[in-house]
Amino acid sequence: MYFGGDYNPEQWPEEVWLEDMRLMRESGVNLVSLGIFAWGLLEPAEGRYDFGWLDRVMDLLHDNGIQVDLATPTSSPPSWFRRSHPASRLVGQDGQVVSGGSRHGFCPSSPEYARAAARITEQLAQRYAGHPAVAMWHVHNEYGWANASCYCDASQEHFRRWLRDRYGTLEALNAAWGTLFWGLTYRAWDEIEVPRNPPPGLIPALELDFRRFSVDAHIALFRAERDIIKRHSAKPVTTNFMIANCKPMDYWKWAAEVDVVSNDHYLQAENPGNHIELAMCADLTRSVAGGRPWLLMEHSTGAVNWQPRNLAKRPGEMRRNSLAHVARGSDSVLFFQWRASRFGAEKFHSAMVPHAGTDSGLWREVVALGQEVARLAVEGRVEAEVAIVWDWESWWALELPWRPSSELEFRERIETYYAAMWREHVTVDFVHPSHDLSRYKLVVAPSSYALSQEAGKNLQRYVESGGHLLVSFFSGIVDGNDTVHPGSHPGALREVLGLSVEEFHPLGAHAEISLDGGQPATMWSERVRLAGALAVRAFASGPDAGHPALTRHDLGRGSAWYVATAPADVRPLLRDLLDHAGVERPRGLPDDLEVVRRGRHTFLINHGDSPVTAASVTVPAGGVDILLEE
Amino acid sequence: MYFGGDYNPEQWPEEVWLEDMRLMRESGVNLVSLGIFAWGLLEPAEGRYDFGWLDRVMDLLHDNGIQVDLATPTSSPPSWFRRSHPASRLVGQDGQVVSGGSRHGFCPSSPEYARAAARITEQLAQRYAGHPAVAMWHVHNEYGWANASCYCDASQEHFRRWLRDRYGTLEALNAAWGTLFWGLTYRAWDEIEVPRNPPPGLIPALELDFRRFSVDAHIALFRAERDIIKRHSAKPVTTNFMIANCKPMDYWKWAAEVDVVSNDHYLQAENPGNHIELAMCADLTRSVAGGRPWLLMEHSTGAVNWQPRNLAKRPGEMRRNSLAHVARGSDSVLFFQWRASRFGAEKFHSAMVPHAGTDSGLWREVVALGQEVARLAVEGRVEAEVAIVWDWESWWALELPWRPSSELEFRERIETYYAAMWREHVTVDFVHPSHDLSRYKLVVAPSSYALSQEAGKNLQRYVESGGHLLVSFFSGIVDGNDTVHPGSHPGALREVLGLSVEEFHPLGAHAEISLDGGQPATMWSERVRLAGALAVRAFASGPDAGHPALTRHDLGRGSAWYVATAPADVRPLLRDLLDHAGVERPRGLPDDLEVVRRGRHTFLINHGDSPVTAASVTVPAGGVDILLEE
Amino acid sequence: MYFGGDYNPEQWPEEVWLEDMRLMRESGVNLVSLGIFAWGLLEPAEGRYDFGWLDRVMDLLHDNGIQVDLATPTSSPPSWFRRSHPASRLVGQDGQVVSGGSRHGFCPSSPEYARAAARITEQLAQRYAGHPAVAMWHVHNEYGWANASCYCDASQEHFRRWLRDRYGTLEALNAAWGTLFWGLTYRAWDEIEVPRNPPPGLIPALELDFRRFSVDAHIALFRAERDIIKRHSAKPVTTNFMIANCKPMDYWKWAAEVDVVSNDHYLQAENPGNHIELAMCADLTRSVAGGRPWLLMEHSTGAVNWQPRNLAKRPGEMRRNSLAHVARGSDSVLFFQWRASRFGAEKFHSAMVPHAGTDSGLWREVVALGQEVARLAVEGRVEAEVAIVWDWESWWALELPWRPSSELEFRERIETYYAAMWREHVTVDFVHPSHDLSRYKLVVAPSSYALSQEAGKNLQRYVESGGHLLVSFFSGIVDGNDTVHPGSHPGALREVLGLSVEEFHPLGAHAEISLDGGQPATMWSERVRLAGALAVRAFASGPDAGHPALTRHDLGRGSAWYVATAPADVRPLLRDLLDHAGVERPRGLPDDLEVVRRGRHTFLINHGDSPVTAASVTVPAGGVDILLEE
Repeated sequence: MYFGGDYNPEQWPEEVWLEDMRLMRESGVNLVSLGIFAWGLLEPAEGRYDFGWLDRVMDLLHDNGIQVDLATPTSSPPSWFRRSHPASRLVGQDGQVVSGGSRHGFCPSSPEYARAAARITEQLAQRYAGHPAVAMWHVHNEYGWANASCYCDASQEHFRRWLRDRYGTLEALNAAWGTLFWGLTYRAWDEIEVPRNPPPGLIPALELDFRRFSVDAHIALFRAERDIIKRHSAKPVTTNFMIANCKPMDYWKWAAEVDVVSNDHYLQAENPGNHIELAMCADLTRSVAGGRPWLLMEHSTGAVNWQPRNLAKRPGEMRRNSLAHVARGSDSVLFFQWRASRFGAEKFHSAMVPHAGTDSGLWREVVALGQEVARLAVEGRVEAEVAIVWDWESWWALELPWRPSSELEFRERIETYYAAMWREHVTVDFVHPSHDLSRYKLVVAPSSYALSQEAGKNLQRYVESGGHLLVSFFSGIVDGNDTVHPGSHPGALREVLGLSVEEFHPLGAHAEISLDGGQPATMWSERVRLAGALAVRAFASGPDAGHPALTRHDLGRGSAWYVATAPADVRPLLRDLLDHAGVERPRGLPDDLEVVRRGRHTFLINHGDSPVTAASVTVPAGGVDILLEE
Repeated sequence: MYFGGDYNPEQWPEEVWLEDMRLMRESGVNLVSLGIFAWGLLEPAEGRYDFGWLDRVMDLLHDNGIQVDLATPTSSPPSWFRRSHPASRLVGQDGQVVSGGSRHGFCPSSPEYARAAARITEQLAQRYAGHPAVAMWHVHNEYGWANASCYCDASQEHFRRWLRDRYGTLEALNAAWGTLFWGLTYRAWDEIEVPRNPPPGLIPALELDFRRFSVDAHIALFRAERDIIKRHSAKPVTTNFMIANCKPMDYWKWAAEVDVVSNDHYLQAENPGNHIELAMCADLTRSVAGGRPWLLMEHSTGAVNWQPRNLAKRPGEMRRNSLAHVARGSDSVLFFQWRASRFGAEKFHSAMVPHAGTDSGLWREVVALGQEVARLAVEGRVEAEVAIVWDWESWWALELPWRPSSELEFRERIETYYAAMWREHVTVDFVHPSHDLSRYKLVVAPSSYALSQEAGKNLQRYVESGGHLLVSFFSGIVDGNDTVHPGSHPGALREVLGLSVEEFHPLGAHAEISLDGGQPATMWSERVRLAGALAVRAFASGPDAGHPALTRHDLGRGSAWYVATAPADVRPLLRDLLDHAGVERPRGLPDDLEVVRRGRHTFLINHGDSPVTAASVTVPAGGVDILLEE
Repeated sequence: MYFGGDYNPEQWPEEVWLEDMRLMRESGVNLVSLGIFAWGLLEPAEGRYDFGWLDRVMDLLHDNGIQVDLATPTSSPPSWFRRSHPASRLVGQDGQVVSGGSRHGFCPSSPEYARAAARITEQLAQRYAGHPAVAMWHVHNEYGWANASCYCDASQEHFRRWLRDRYGTLEALNAAWGTLFWGLTYRAWDEIEVPRNPPPGLIPALELDFRRFSVDAHIALFRAERDIIKRHSAKPVTTNFMIANCKPMDYWKWAAEVDVVSNDHYLQAENPGNHIELAMCADLTRSVAGGRPWLLMEHSTGAVNWQPRNLAKRPGEMRRNSLAHVARGSDSVLFFQWRASRFGAEKFHSAMVPHAGTDSGLWREVVALGQEVARLAVEGRVEAEVAIVWDWESWWALELPWRPSSELEFRERIETYYAAMWREHVTVDFVHPSHDLSRYKLVVAPSSYALSQEAGKNLQRYVESGGHLLVSFFSGIVDGNDTVHPGSHPGALREVLGLSVEEFHPLGAHAEISLDGGQPATMWSERVRLAGALAVRAFASGPDAGHPALTRHDLGRGSAWYVATAPADVRPLLRDLLDHAGVERPRGLPDDLEVVRRGRHTFLINHGDSPVTAASVTVPAGGVDILLEE
């Protein structure tokens, strides 16, 4: 179990390094991420290197028994690089060069950047591959943080080449993009433009492909660095994700590229359910990692600096957060960053050593947590009987302009169903709709707007083989090019659900309708036509009063359920389905007790204000207990 | 009476065309607008044409007895055109080229665009002028939808030439624009810039002339196409307006250019008074058409796709909407579009044939409506005794920056007075302030901020000859260059109103004052000085307590009334004026029964939730009855 | 005592000038600011001049006994200048040239602009230095109004030169800017970019230096004009400030450059405490003037035109405003502008002669005020025993992105404490934290986020010498480069306050906590650690319940107090401190009676709705009385 964080010794005089070593030992730090922002120091001029200081830090860490997750510093190119390679500079969607003075200011399609990144990576890998402190390689940092897409002319050329590779012919591209609409058929590859200063009514499939292209451009950069490292070192290579908080990246794709998945997670300070959002992100990280252990690469000891109001963590909250990540599969508790910066944009971001120094409650909590982590013998996997469908491409598509309702948001429905599961103490995996789902008793698809026919068939096979499926409205409507499946909605799911939808009836702002049991619902209604499914519940009011609101379709050995609205409370429905699917979970516990089992350990994390007694132990308010099954 | 809509067969395989014909016949379609977005297909490369598919569609339609409103496809230039003519691309107010992948992406001042548009128009006119299916020509589509103004250098040059034509000399321009303010006198034509990235405090008259210029640039393009068609065909030429929903276009000017006025109208889905807004737009369309019948070129069978929440139409609502347009002068019920698209930006826009196909309530309503329209023998004109002043130039001027109150909005006051008239079952025409008004018993000027001295005199002659005039505050303040008329406000109306305004007293946010009868009022107060008029009602509170709030000036054989605030309810005032002016209207009917007479038919459209008995017929809730006077 | 305003006769035919003279004499006008926007008329072409009309106006004014504050017209370069010097045009932060048609459209770093401004200044100074009407010189107008910073390439070059002058070496700059964060070390001066299209996470110190540079660029332009004038004339030179309402200008710096400080002030129409905001601005103007009399160069007779709702002044309000300025040190009552413009961007800005002319309440109030001002024999200084710290650099730094809470706003805390003082009838000076403070009994630092160690020491010397100091939270945190002082917060004030802050605890939106006396507080809490100070009051709830909320540190002969939150009402606290510090002020008066003493006159301005009796006179509601001490 790793404990530690980002270490930026270059911000401090060398005498501070010695104190750092002492304090790292005191707090049980055994891994630091090093050199993430050091390019400008390591290569002070093009092709001239200065590794002396890094050599000293590496040796010092090793002498103190601390391992290193050694970074390639390529997320923050040096200031000289921008000047001597102006074509490499990031261009925003407004067509303007973004000025310097920050990180991530490069174009992901720039060959000059790629060459420079490869060169410094080669230098680092060559020099440190054999260093005994190196435990892991940390390629880049938060790919896409501020440069998910670049809109420069070089990116446009790159996009065209990428499209040519994807489609082969313009005929195929025109067919996929539906360019017959508004007569926009492309007759030459260089007629295609990136969506720089986009017009209203832009071809939706262009936008989706531009996002896919942008992911691929970053992945290509990652692969180049990874492969250089691999030529020198057998140590695992990772890059840190921002799992549910970086819409433009597709982490299903990314996860296939790394040796070990790692993630950065920051609490939404003012969200009272932020511990549930944390759990969701941890579960999603584990899921993209294929269920294997992963690393919490960054979280915070206290406040961050970039939210509107950066609330500090309450006493015990850092511990609860850390152990929740571990419970959900993390083999580490790592922070950004070791020592709070005195200058720069993130000086008000909390750290392990705060501005107030070591005579502080925060430091004492860090030391206590480090000691607890050192004692943890947690290992093994988290097993889930329930899965929720998550697909970044569906996220992109659902939130394009000109949808039936602006209230349709990808994360909104997913978080609603996830939170209900969390409160039912049910552990959830996330899945891509093309995955083998046979291990799950229940699969929920709350926001699967874009869903291929193949994925629809996959869900159908899952049900026929005995699975239980719950689909929420406005799912299975279009394919990956945002083209409506032929025939009635939901084209990719009509068969498995045993119904069709005749017309969407999005509700007005603040409108509320009810189902025939009296339950209120909002946002959406629609006219469902049964074709094999049974109506379990009907609308009692609204534009579809008397028509089905919740349906069930028994198919093969399983069942497929459909909910045609946004119930104000989805828990009663979910409870019925969990029972129906035979999902086991603890009963009779308060909602805000987090219960997760990993390997032989069961974590009980009490997010409530009262002590809870469960499984014969009493967990104090705000406390954590970890039960070990012998 | 035309029934049909936009037909885009190019989006579908030819086998679907045969089904289309069958369904069109089933639903009574007798006119389709064809080829609106077909440029990219008809001219796949510059100067190379492919009319084969269109020939087949034309013949097929003709064989099925369906007439064609044949479009020039110039609102959506082909993708190849942008590439080979980069100078033709639209530049936004931020100075950036708007990227491709949508329609309307061209600069209205581009000579390259004008030549290309003329060429394809010539081809179409030549080829199809003699085709028996052609009933009408549909030039372009929604001029100005996304490119009302272009801010490129060519537009700037064009603007300077236009100004030279308008003013002749810089002395005249400087005088008109008031450039003495801030010492901005122009000494050469090429010192004048378009308002690209405009500064605070921009010369208001420059902005107004730039809008006039932009209208003229589009009209010049229209004329070029129209005149080409006219050389080949005697069939009427139209282009579809967006009457009250395209602020940058001046449809008084546009209406003078077309053979028949046509309009697109889309319901404001979440506006509970959207049927009144519809009526207003229909009345305004009829008015710009000079009272002649016009064509409803586009409306929707159900939801649109571009509003925040695209509510579907309720049962009967499509019929009510359609018949309301007919009642107010439309000789057609046409929709965008025939068959719902599967791809592109508008796939969630409803259509006559929905995604759900013909086994759907919507299709059945379409068929029923088509049959009803076919039986309608409505003809003739709508006669109104009341007119409301509407002037796009006043709209532009009123909403420039740096006004007395940001709550001053052109449509706000007009819609307030219009809605009150609607609820009083009074049919209204709209008029330009320079029009001959003698046919009206009452003229209302709710938002005539910019009003020339000549227009003021026109209103005065109207009153002196026996007319009755009601003016709302902040009218008659400036001329068409946003220059305050000399002397006290309202300079263009002081004489006819018999008063002056000493000082404006806009109210603070949410402030409410009252008149001496106790009626509440908001937004505005001002110090009225009587000079011939009588105070009918005074302010009881607010900055002008004790001073006139409503005045009457008997002049010649008529009277001129002035209301110096925004009463919370204008109906009592309007009722008095309607009585005073002798305007006949039905009495004792519920507010939400729409009553309009066209020719010998009286339409009763019940927008309420209860049946209404009127003129010895009972109209069910949501229903329509049409009475024929023998 | 000057009475008058901006006079723009060029907007009117010469016959109006004669009426102007008559009305100026009638209303007691004795000074007008002339020629502010006349460049385009005085120099109709480059190097060609037309002073004839100005000669006539000058003579006319002189003949009528009216003095002139003669302006250099350089805030509004002629339209021909933009065309012939395109490199001089202002470029916005988005990198786009701002179009013409307004004032202030030039780049402050443009050498072409500087040359042209010097040339017209030389012409004016030479021609009119000897004219007997000239009483004063009005250089430019509202420096920085719309062009506080320019982001063009020339500005970037200028910024780099300025930085080289400031830092000498890149090593010094890198150290000051903390470029080690994110590895942004600069290796060449031309790697530094202006923050055009700035990235997230921009180096904060770069932003701060860019603002300092921008101030200096404007001051250099001012100096050039001033020095030209000084070569010809001994009359005083001023330029009009916008004291608390132009965040980008640093008026401590500006005040050192002018012979007499002058200020423009406009009421915040919808702010019910706008008379307190006025008082604050007047006190701040007097303070930057070093306590010397200053000139109210512009205010308004009624409504302005640029606020959302431009409420007119109530009866008596113009008089109250005017006399409040005089009471707080102004030797003038001057308005923008003499006669309301009929055209241009400010036609709805009130004036001394309104559109309604002289048969108007407003004109009568102007005449009465002019007569009253003429009778005023007020002179001498305003003395204050209390000072509030104000530093534009702290304003800039506090409101950079990525702070602990978005609710931290510079003016918010200052206005809270100022308003409480105002309601306690205590007159306040403003001070820079480096000033000699020994004359004050109490100094309050509500928003001193950025505070150098030297300034912290200055405050400490003040306390040790017997002063009393009140500091509000989040003060003394960083130095002028936004670098956190070493050690615990508040690094620059730990010693004088006798405490440290362990962790910030900004509160969530709308959260309320309480102190142990029950007083509510909002926005902020923090963990205070005493180190010499005593806890006067503790938090009763919130994240720091039981820990100090208000502390006192007796040091030397004085005391230093610290308040670690935002009390809902700061008056009880302030009253205690005023008593403790022995600050004298009137007792028992209603809150809304403004009481200020200047020289031997005491102004009683009744902003309330009831008459007030004080010092044996009764001031009617809305009235003013001025008591003279013999």
